[in-house]
Amino acid sequence: MDTPGDGRRSSGAGRSLGRRFRRVRAATLDLVAPLEVEDLVPASHPNASSAKWHLGHTTWWFERYFLEPHLRGFAPDPEWRDLFDPGRRGFRTDRGVWSRPTAAEVGDYRRRVEDKIGRALEAGLGSNAEAALRFGIQHEALHQELLLADLKHLFGTHPLRPAYRADGEPDGFEDAPPPLRFLSFAGGEVRIGRFGTDSGFGNETPRHRRFLEPFGLANRLVTNGEYREFIEEGGYRERSLWLPDGWDACVAEGWRAPLYWENPHDGPGTEFTLLGPRPIEPAAPVSHVSYFEADAFARWRECRLPGEAEWETAAAGLRVEGNFAESGRLVPRPASRDRAGVAAPGPAQMFGDLWEWTRSPHGPYPGYRTADRQPGDPTTGFATGRQVLRGGSCLAPELLVRETTRNFLRPRTRLLPTGIRLARDRTH
Amino acid sequence: MDTPGDGRRSSGAGRSLGRRFRRVRAATLDLVAPLEVEDLVPASHPNASSAKWHLGHTTWWFERYFLEPHLRGFAPDPEWRDLFDPGRRGFRTDRGVWSRPTAAEVGDYRRRVEDKIGRALEAGLGSNAEAALRFGIQHEALHQELLLADLKHLFGTHPLRPAYRADGEPDGFEDAPPPLRFLSFAGGEVRIGRFGTDSGFGNETPRHRRFLEPFGLANRLVTNGEYREFIEEGGYRERSLWLPDGWDACVAEGWRAPLYWENPHDGPGTEFTLLGPRPIEPAAPVSHVSYFEADAFARWRECRLPGEAEWETAAAGLRVEGNFAESGRLVPRPASRDRAGVAAPGPAQMFGDLWEWTRSPHGPYPGYRTADRQPGDPTTGFATGRQVLRGGSCLAPELLVRETTRNFLRPRTRLLPTGIRLARDRTH
Amino acid sequence: MDTPGDGRRSSGAGRSLGRRFRRVRAATLDLVAPLEVEDLVPASHPNASSAKWHLGHTTWWFERYFLEPHLRGFAPDPEWRDLFDPGRRGFRTDRGVWSRPTAAEVGDYRRRVEDKIGRALEAGLGSNAEAALRFGIQHEALHQELLLADLKHLFGTHPLRPAYRADGEPDGFEDAPPPLRFLSFAGGEVRIGRFGTDSGFGNETPRHRRFLEPFGLANRLVTNGEYREFIEEGGYRERSLWLPDGWDACVAEGWRAPLYWENPHDGPGTEFTLLGPRPIEPAAPVSHVSYFEADAFARWRECRLPGEAEWETAAAGLRVEGNFAESGRLVPRPASRDRAGVAAPGPAQMFGDLWEWTRSPHGPYPGYRTADRQPGDPTTGFATGRQVLRGGSCLAPELLVRETTRNFLRPRTRLLPTGIRLARDRTH
Amino acid sequence: MDTPGDGRRSSGAGRSLGRRFRRVRAATLDLVAPLEVEDLVPASHPNASSAKWHLGHTTWWFERYFLEPHLRGFAPDPEWRDLFDPGRRGFRTDRGVWSRPTAAEVGDYRRRVEDKIGRALEAGLGSNAEAALRFGIQHEALHQELLLADLKHLFGTHPLRPAYRADGEPDGFEDAPPPLRFLSFAGGEVRIGRFGTDSGFGNETPRHRRFLEPFGLANRLVTNGEYREFIEEGGYRERSLWLPDGWDACVAEGWRAPLYWENPHDGPGTEFTLLGPRPIEPAAPVSHVSYFEADAFARWRECRLPGEAEWETAAAGLRVEGNFAESGRLVPRPASRDRAGVAAPGPAQMFGDLWEWTRSPHGPYPGYRTADRQPGDPTTGFATGRQVLRGGSCLAPELLVRETTRNFLRPRTRLLPTGIRLARDRTH
Repeated sequence: MDTPGDGRRSSGAGRSLGRRFRRVRAATLDLVAPLEVEDLVPASHPNASSAKWHLGHTTWWFERYFLEPHLRGFAPDPEWRDLFDPGRRGFRTDRGVWSRPTAAEVGDYRRRVEDKIGRALEAGLGSNAEAALRFGIQHEALHQELLLADLKHLFGTHPLRPAYRADGEPDGFEDAPPPLRFLSFAGGEVRIGRFGTDSGFGNETPRHRRFLEPFGLANRLVTNGEYREFIEEGGYRERSLWLPDGWDACVAEGWRAPLYWENPHDGPGTEFTLLGPRPIEPAAPVSHVSYFEADAFARWRECRLPGEAEWETAAAGLRVEGNFAESGRLVPRPASRDRAGVAAPGPAQMFGDLWEWTRSPHGPYPGYRTADRQPGDPTTGFATGRQVLRGGSCLAPELLVRETTRNFLRPRTRLLPTGIRLARDRTH
Repeated sequence: MDTPGDGRRSSGAGRSLGRRFRRVRAATLDLVAPLEVEDLVPASHPNASSAKWHLGHTTWWFERYFLEPHLRGFAPDPEWRDLFDPGRRGFRTDRGVWSRPTAAEVGDYRRRVEDKIGRALEAGLGSNAEAALRFGIQHEALHQELLLADLKHLFGTHPLRPAYRADGEPDGFEDAPPPLRFLSFAGGEVRIGRFGTDSGFGNETPRHRRFLEPFGLANRLVTNGEYREFIEEGGYRERSLWLPDGWDACVAEGWRAPLYWENPHDGPGTEFTLLGPRPIEPAAPVSHVSYFEADAFARWRECRLPGEAEWETAAAGLRVEGNFAESGRLVPRPASRDRAGVAAPGPAQMFGDLWEWTRSPHGPYPGYRTADRQPGDPTTGFATGRQVLRGGSCLAPELLVRETTRNFLRPRTRLLPTGIRLARDRTH
Repeated sequence: MDTPGDGRRSSGAGRSLGRRFRRVRAATLDLVAPLEVEDLVPASHPNASSAKWHLGHTTWWFERYFLEPHLRGFAPDPEWRDLFDPGRRGFRTDRGVWSRPTAAEVGDYRRRVEDKIGRALEAGLGSNAEAALRFGIQHEALHQELLLADLKHLFGTHPLRPAYRADGEPDGFEDAPPPLRFLSFAGGEVRIGRFGTDSGFGNETPRHRRFLEPFGLANRLVTNGEYREFIEEGGYRERSLWLPDGWDACVAEGWRAPLYWENPHDGPGTEFTLLGPRPIEPAAPVSHVSYFEADAFARWRECRLPGEAEWETAAAGLRVEGNFAESGRLVPRPASRDRAGVAAPGPAQMFGDLWEWTRSPHGPYPGYRTADRQPGDPTTGFATGRQVLRGGSCLAPELLVRETTRNFLRPRTRLLPTGIRLARDRTH
Repeated sequence: MDTPGDGRRSSGAGRSLGRRFRRVRAATLDLVAPLEVEDLVPASHPNASSAKWHLGHTTWWFERYFLEPHLRGFAPDPEWRDLFDPGRRGFRTDRGVWSRPTAAEVGDYRRRVEDKIGRALEAGLGSNAEAALRFGIQHEALHQELLLADLKHLFGTHPLRPAYRADGEPDGFEDAPPPLRFLSFAGGEVRIGRFGTDSGFGNETPRHRRFLEPFGLANRLVTNGEYREFIEEGGYRERSLWLPDGWDACVAEGWRAPLYWENPHDGPGTEFTLLGPRPIEPAAPVSHVSYFEADAFARWRECRLPGEAEWETAAAGLRVEGNFAESGRLVPRPASRDRAGVAAPGPAQMFGDLWEWTRSPHGPYPGYRTADRQPGDPTTGFATGRQVLRGGSCLAPELLVRETTRNFLRPRTRLLPTGIRLARDRTH
């Protein structure tokens, strides 16, 4: 354990880190600015948390994993010590039914912790403390997306369907997307994964070798229009298209369309978004589908979902830019003809817009060492039965997304902004 | 349907009814005055509602069952029309996860409806409208108790155990209660039930005859001290003391003590109350026990629970006074020696303090006619598998409680302030 | 404890008791005679038992409650001691998945126990032992009906719908039943319940007084034809007809018709019986309906179900004769015009044919003393949430049925042969 | 579709295939020979089937996937057509509660189908028919192991703990196993998977390339003695050792030891086997552990489980011989010092004894084509959330086991004979 304040000067890197810390914290508060106090309290799904909990939990992370180990003499408030710890007994069932601490008290808590971190930064950080702080910024960014997705479910299942931001207006829906086609990749021995020295999560490491057969990857995401064909041709009723567990889920949950579609069967239908209910836009990518739906759609198209090594190989060298949370759009955009057609020969929509389901189950990479684990890293628990998703989304902040970022979700879940990119074997 | 305003003058009875209406509405707001906005939002148990829901639902009742049928030309806001209707699809699962309407919006809703009712009262009411308004007052009173009981669960299961009113102080705990003894009643042909002309709920009618064998009824409620003996002598582990379904519930729920007792096994223990956690007071009556626990305790004492006709026969002629919500105590009081011993020969604590479990399942009285049902009367659904409770509680407003009032709860529930009065057959 | 064989001679009463014992035991074996060995093993419903378990359990009863307490020096086989004890841990889930003991071993067990009882009878019994033996005969009779009802479910839910007895032929279906009308009863102070000195179950005692208002009781059971009208007029879709818990059950279970009806919506339909699938007979009484269905039907007819005291008052003085298991019919018979019309002025089908749901929840009678409980009496556990049924059925042996016999079932259950008799208040 | 009997002569390959067909069918009957008729009926776990169902289902497979497509004019009995189809509605819940068809009727069914296949073989088969028959033999072998494992659960959870074969006697327990050590493998680009032309399941194909880092693999399975240390040092109580879902399973299921261990905490304990209850043998490999237990044990030993490509690389070139079902032992054997020490330098117990959990989730191999799927192949449904196991077991017939065979099970399951082989990264 190294401690700050032992005569070291705050370096330029430290100042930059401090700026990034303050920026990510401010961005979280920006996300709740449009809300009523009441909106901060409830969670509407067993896997969702209240906004207030996200505000508290991200703060708790810095307390537990930055201040406790790295700030000499720091002692947390004993009553609050476990309140926002996801390992606390009862966490899963009660975090959405807390009225206390109030929003104001959580706000005070955030400021208290930020002040302490600010002073630690001024005093200068050792390398372990810096690593923890860098990681906490990632962790806060991760919860920003969850906060928005959980609010979307809260509002989208409320009888009145309130909008998170009533003044938003999506753009880019005027043009038809470019035709779907497959870009060819040669495969062979490739390298994937993050170098341990960069910022990021533990499940992205270590960088290692894989062997890939040649494959094709779609130039863009599947659209609402294409997905509607799947529905209209009976995709939700045709058992043979589904994985066995997928069919069980489909029947048990009564799925007939993506999560937020309403009345798609008797006309154009609407889709609930954070901007309120809107017409289902055929050109926009289909979102809030489960892995099982993505997989069934791919089978119906006689394709498959990409493996994560395939996705990462295709993404290698692309600039990490796209429709992230920072754009303020809050909905995925159609692929533009220009970007996917003439100007840019690579795949479009790889970053931002929607998380893309892969056929790869989540697990540790070969050579991953638990001993190197950053304390508080939620990606290295390696819960079983999750599928990897790639590329970020329109609700994810840009700093969360790298070509190596591995999100992972249960194959049944539809809470996050998830979409479909098709792949196929190259048969030559 | 009769409508107000057709030339009739507001009578003295009407003015008195108006006063009672305004008083009960104001009392509801008084109950939420000590709360934070956040406290109004969540519900912490599948059978509980949020405070905000209680505020809205009682208002909705007046809208649906008073204004709609009795105010000419009234049309409810279509969006809110079903929002607080317990028959709405989804009601059971989502009413505790609503952030909207906000507390302020619900407050406006209350005022709008009250204004309309005020104007209708000024114009004068027909007899059906008066009956509906009288009933709505009962309904509002009923939800006042539920609101407090639901808040108690919200706070009592929160890790921080916040107090509803931190400045309260219970009284009357200094003296030992009078010894438990049984008062004798002769039985024979008795009459129970409410005359249809009085205010009250439908399940109290019609007044009818019963035949009772001679019985004895305890002079007071069972105390915490007596209940602790039951625990310490293994009452929760001795299957033969329990009804079969009770034993199943005991095992499934892991019961080892009343709902709000904490750590009673390693010392005096504490009990969560609306005044915050407090030491378990041996002289005070045991509260928040299920029917199954009450029944098992009675069997352990070689007694039984009273039948509801026995209870009502014993209560006949007593004044309806006691420790109700109006006292502001919020906790049950020990039986006083004076009242139960020398001065008053009848049973103590019959009204107020705690609802008393009876061995009578809830059902319609002989001769009950569905056709006479007051629309919106929640007591005449006659859901199966509920036990009758009698006598009101320290969280119930006085106007709710008559010698004929029949509360009814599932035998597993412990959310309300429920207690135990013993009875036995007279064998001689 | 009194023990046999101490010089007392086997009395005439003892010889008669012995005959009855041997007869009831032989009758049980007759019930399984048409079965394959495989049919004895499984149970197809969580509340059902395998035939083999019924064979073993009734024998275990005699071992535990007759031989152990009343036969000096008797020691049960320790391995088998708990095998057929319903209090054994795991009983509820595993009794339908046992392959061992084999049917042959259970047969040997029955004979061993019968031999010991035979010798005890020869030596002469004390009065407690006689009471236990008389009770065990009732208990065996009770399980005979359960055995048949459980087999009906096993066969009725099997894809091949095998018949229990393929050669049976129902009779009496040629004539229309007499029109439904209500017989008048004056009520007042009545007496119900069994005198403690007769054979029977504990829940029938003590005989005691009740007060009844005047009432009307239907002259016969509700028919399939009448029930079909209820279905066709939307009874299963009209929420207002149902008790709240009943509607929940109806939706959760997907009820659209009585348990064993198949395809009633597109033609005459069939009904599974122990004689195999048969056309639904309009004149026959409707069977295998839950309490909730019976109650909803009654409400639809603007009637109600009888109280158990009403039923017993109407049954008082009638001869206990009807379509019991001994008839070998195995299906309920239509009410005959003669019996219900001209010759017999009283209500028809009161005994046999179908158990009749009453609106009375099951509980101890006033004055019931747990201390007088016959060990092993399943009726005196007084599980909560059961409704009383009266009158026996076509699967119940005659010796089980008295005017005082109180069966009790969960309001959701449809496993037993249950039917509907209407009642109403007399309004004059 | 090609059909037999069109003038082709039965080849030598055909005769050999016929012999193998008859041998595998006879072996299934041998497995049920020690049983009582009653043992064939029930299933004691939601994921288990009755022995009778295994007998019928394997026969149905030949009917549906061999006779229907490949025998001209074959028409199945319409009533039985779906009876043993696992896709039949209701299959999951009712297959363990069928009494019919009787064991004798299922035996006739087996013979009828075998006769038809015998005649088809005499007439000569086309290549598709041969492939289906070869596959059906694999399918029958697969169900032989399931049949034994399901019987083990039936007997092992029965209060009397009956033995499947009371005369068996395990051997080889006298010597201590060789010390645990790790054999080194270089990794690099390897090839795994079955060539499509050999017999086997679809999930083993296609043979393809992988890239492996250097790794070490244990020379033998983990023993009961080693696993007992894990228990005694608190392995089942130490949350940090478990995967998150594993800990949930451990708590929810109340795991404290492997499935069939009894009373291991107060002495040597016993283990239920198909030979009846036996002392827990320290030298024998630990069996009937879930993936979660295997994974937690490995973490406790600061190792990990092998990947399936690692396992297959280590197994490449070894002879497929070991303790399979044919040995009649029915229990796993300790690793012998000779085999693992001096004589054989490779890993011991790779084939037979116990299925070995790998850390690889089950999924299609790169390049797998659904279009090439053998109809009725249960391995190519690719249900999500299963882990791959390798190497066969003492209950699996030898013909099922290849170096490429991929079993796959839910990480919670403990029904099959599963064990642990440790692996680790090579760090140097």
